Amino acid sequence: MTTPRPLILVTSFEPFGGSPVNPTMEIARLLADLPCTHGSRAYVTLPVVTGESAGSAWATLLPILESMRPDAVVALGESAKADRVQFERVAVNLRDARIADNAGVQLCDASVIDDAPNAHFATLPLRAMLAACESVGVPAQLSLSAGTFLCNELMFRLLHRAQPAAAGFIHAAGFIHAAGFIHAAGFIHVPQLPIQATARGGPSMDAQTTARGVHAALEMLAQTLISEQRA
Amino acid sequence: MTTPRPLILVTSFEPFGGSPVNPTMEIARLLADLPCTHGSRAYVTLPVVTGESAGSAWATLLPILESMRPDAVVALGESAKADRVQFERVAVNLRDARIADNAGVQLCDASVIDDAPNAHFATLPLRAMLAACESVGVPAQLSLSAGTFLCNELMFRLLHRAQPAAAGFIHAAGFIHAAGFIHAAGFIHVPQLPIQATARGGPSMDAQTTARGVHAALEMLAQTLISEQRA
Amino acid sequence: MTTPRPLILVTSFEPFGGSPVNPTMEIARLLADLPCTHGSRAYVTLPVVTGESAGSAWATLLPILESMRPDAVVALGESAKADRVQFERVAVNLRDARIADNAGVQLCDASVIDDAPNAHFATLPLRAMLAACESVGVPAQLSLSAGTFLCNELMFRLLHRAQPAAAGFIHAAGFIHAAGFIHAAGFIHVPQLPIQATARGGPSMDAQTTARGVHAALEMLAQTLISEQRA
Amino acid sequence: MTTPRPLILVTSFEPFGGSPVNPTMEIARLLADLPCTHGSRAYVTLPVVTGESAGSAWATLLPILESMRPDAVVALGESAKADRVQFERVAVNLRDARIADNAGVQLCDASVIDDAPNAHFATLPLRAMLAACESVGVPAQLSLSAGTFLCNELMFRLLHRAQPAAAGFIHAAGFIHAAGFIHAAGFIHVPQLPIQATARGGPSMDAQTTARGVHAALEMLAQTLISEQRA
Repeated sequence: MTTPRPLILVTSFEPFGGSPVNPTMEIARLLADLPCTHGSRAYVTLPVVTGESAGSAWATLLPILESMRPDAVVALGESAKADRVQFERVAVNLRDARIADNAGVQLCDASVIDDAPNAHFATLPLRAMLAACESVGVPAQLSLSAGTFLCNELMFRLLHRAQPAAAGFIHAAGFIHAAGFIHAAGFIHVPQLPIQATARGGPSMDAQTTARGVHAALEMLAQTLISEQRA
Repeated sequence: MTTPRPLILVTSFEPFGGSPVNPTMEIARLLADLPCTHGSRAYVTLPVVTGESAGSAWATLLPILESMRPDAVVALGESAKADRVQFERVAVNLRDARIADNAGVQLCDASVIDDAPNAHFATLPLRAMLAACESVGVPAQLSLSAGTFLCNELMFRLLHRAQPAAAGFIHAAGFIHAAGFIHAAGFIHVPQLPIQATARGGPSMDAQTTARGVHAALEMLAQTLISEQRA
Repeated sequence: MTTPRPLILVTSFEPFGGSPVNPTMEIARLLADLPCTHGSRAYVTLPVVTGESAGSAWATLLPILESMRPDAVVALGESAKADRVQFERVAVNLRDARIADNAGVQLCDASVIDDAPNAHFATLPLRAMLAACESVGVPAQLSLSAGTFLCNELMFRLLHRAQPAAAGFIHAAGFIHAAGFIHAAGFIHVPQLPIQATARGGPSMDAQTTARGVHAALEMLAQTLISEQRA
Repeated sequence: MTTPRPLILVTSFEPFGGSPVNPTMEIARLLADLPCTHGSRAYVTLPVVTGESAGSAWATLLPILESMRPDAVVALGESAKADRVQFERVAVNLRDARIADNAGVQLCDASVIDDAPNAHFATLPLRAMLAACESVGVPAQLSLSAGTFLCNELMFRLLHRAQPAAAGFIHAAGFIHAAGFIHAAGFIHVPQLPIQATARGGPSMDAQTTARGVHAALEMLAQTLISEQRA
């Protein structure tokens, strides 16, 4: 049996910063139960550990990327300040953490990858995905900063790997063909869960609502990948 | 057949201000489907019309109060700014609207009821209801202002009617016995729905989550009413 | 020599909650240096101590009110959340503090004055004062809650003392004649100082700007008091 | 006579978006009146016009850069949302404007400079400048996005011009030597003025306070440039 293409890999993160849950894990579970019209999906939960050593998010993800060869990767991360789904436009080559990761490491003013570009733009069709998310009644927006913690780092590593040597500026559609294994990659920040907001304050969004919006965005991504393949 | 007591009347509002929906109507529908362990519930949707004339919220509610004689009334209203369930502590004798109501009336610096007190405190066990709401994972807080539009007006009218002549300060439990038909009354502001936040911006909460929190608060209210009756 | 009337007493508060400064003290100093076209002003700084015992804000203020017989009292207090000058519309008969006062006392769900009304409306010409403040380029707004700490308590005590027995609803002008010593009273919340925002986060306003706005509002108040006297 | 070095060029912007003022012009006037301990300063106000054509901000600035050969350029811009001074860390190669510039041009999803890097990091000693700003009581923070309007564009163009061909990642001090005319460049977002917040809402900061903080930051920058020269 062959995996239906396009294959979109969705990553979530383990809990961190003292919280017993991470909304992205619950959202990934819900996404896995929703039917996908175009292609197929795969899901993996990553440790909240910076760097490339064994046990890090990247060291966990890399062999999966190599064996699975997804057509696109959409990484999910939690934002305690977000009141809606945030489609990240850019990842910067900077690590500057306010708290330690789950391995106890806290980096200040470090690069993600030495001698790499200062930033990478998302290669997902962000505006189409945003519109798809809103079309199912889920508030969303484009965002210009994924922070300087592991969310930004993962997005940067994904895009750095996917980036063709001569990648120019992002297309009008927000989508470019990449020379590597990954055709498209990007990051979506999701709000905290209501139960987290109870203790910590701030806005929240329940996992069902967020998952409905992300699902619509993934369907749109799959559809765009198919169109691009035909063109 | 006799209506199981305590009977709690829950009011919602019709849409207003150009929005096609009002979250309180959807929440009331969901509440009606949830089982209630103690006593019974009744639901009514009120027009967004100020004053006491025919067609106003109060003219709609008053005959229902008189025939139904609920043990408590919990009024629900929408707040576009709220990111959590808000248990209102006080209603003021002031109407000062930024927009017209659904009958086209806009009042500035008017009283709700002439020669009535400046304010009434909620007579619901607010802290217990807040704790019940949070215990089911739904963010909530006490609030010191229900605004100066119809939400505040309805809360004021309910409490003014329920207020015994010699009502002193609110008890530590936030609950007093009233001499009138209504034993307890108050107001809960709920966030806008995600679909509303898509167009207007701002935080939101889906109806299922809000309804789960309000349901837990109503259960706690019913339990408190039973305990008070026994004491 | 006779004190030029109307005489407006302006109160400020001492620092509290661990902050070394209170913006209201600096603002009062600046106000005292600005010329006043109508009548005169007096200034007093009050301790951040709840209640009526010796050493409390009220016990400090009361003999001054009795000897000075000001025509109006405008109390100033600090709000760490405010990004503009806030003219408070209503004080509630409720003390519910999140932190202890400077005497170490922290009250929860207590009244300010037993058997007093639930709330008092400000008897200052708020809308005219707001417009005067904005006319000198200082952002301002009306506010519906002065909180439940000492700011609200002082405002409530001032208005309770000033309130004539049969005081009805606040006039369209937001101003009523009172039978007591004080003709008008109210409360203005001011933002924290920039130096406070450096450490604590949140918006701020420098003392010069705030003082300019409050000064214009006081001038308007004095002018209104003169007009009322003539009428 | 020789211009005392280091020479820091400070740019401000003309009013835009319907506002009659731009805080950066007033701040530049105040800065020009404050004594500078180290080196000298120059000031220029730029038109709010995108691109490189005659009349654009860049076409106005470029000949000044070439003739003046400043050691550093600090560009100032207005943020209607900021409640403190914001030291921008990164400029992205993206123009995506919500409103037209003063020449009526509005660009969506365009690059700033074709075939240029995706982003440039500020080459100012940001943390030292931030600390200097706060040390004079002016709230400040680092920021990860200068937006996608002319502020970001100007910052990107300045850094792109200053960037040596092989510029690696920003140093720990947030400061690198550049091969071009400009040794260091960056962008500071300042809050709107109180008078602007009166009409539009939102936080504000008076020009004197902002200028005091920016002045301290510039002094620190000059001192750092001198130290670097010696090293």
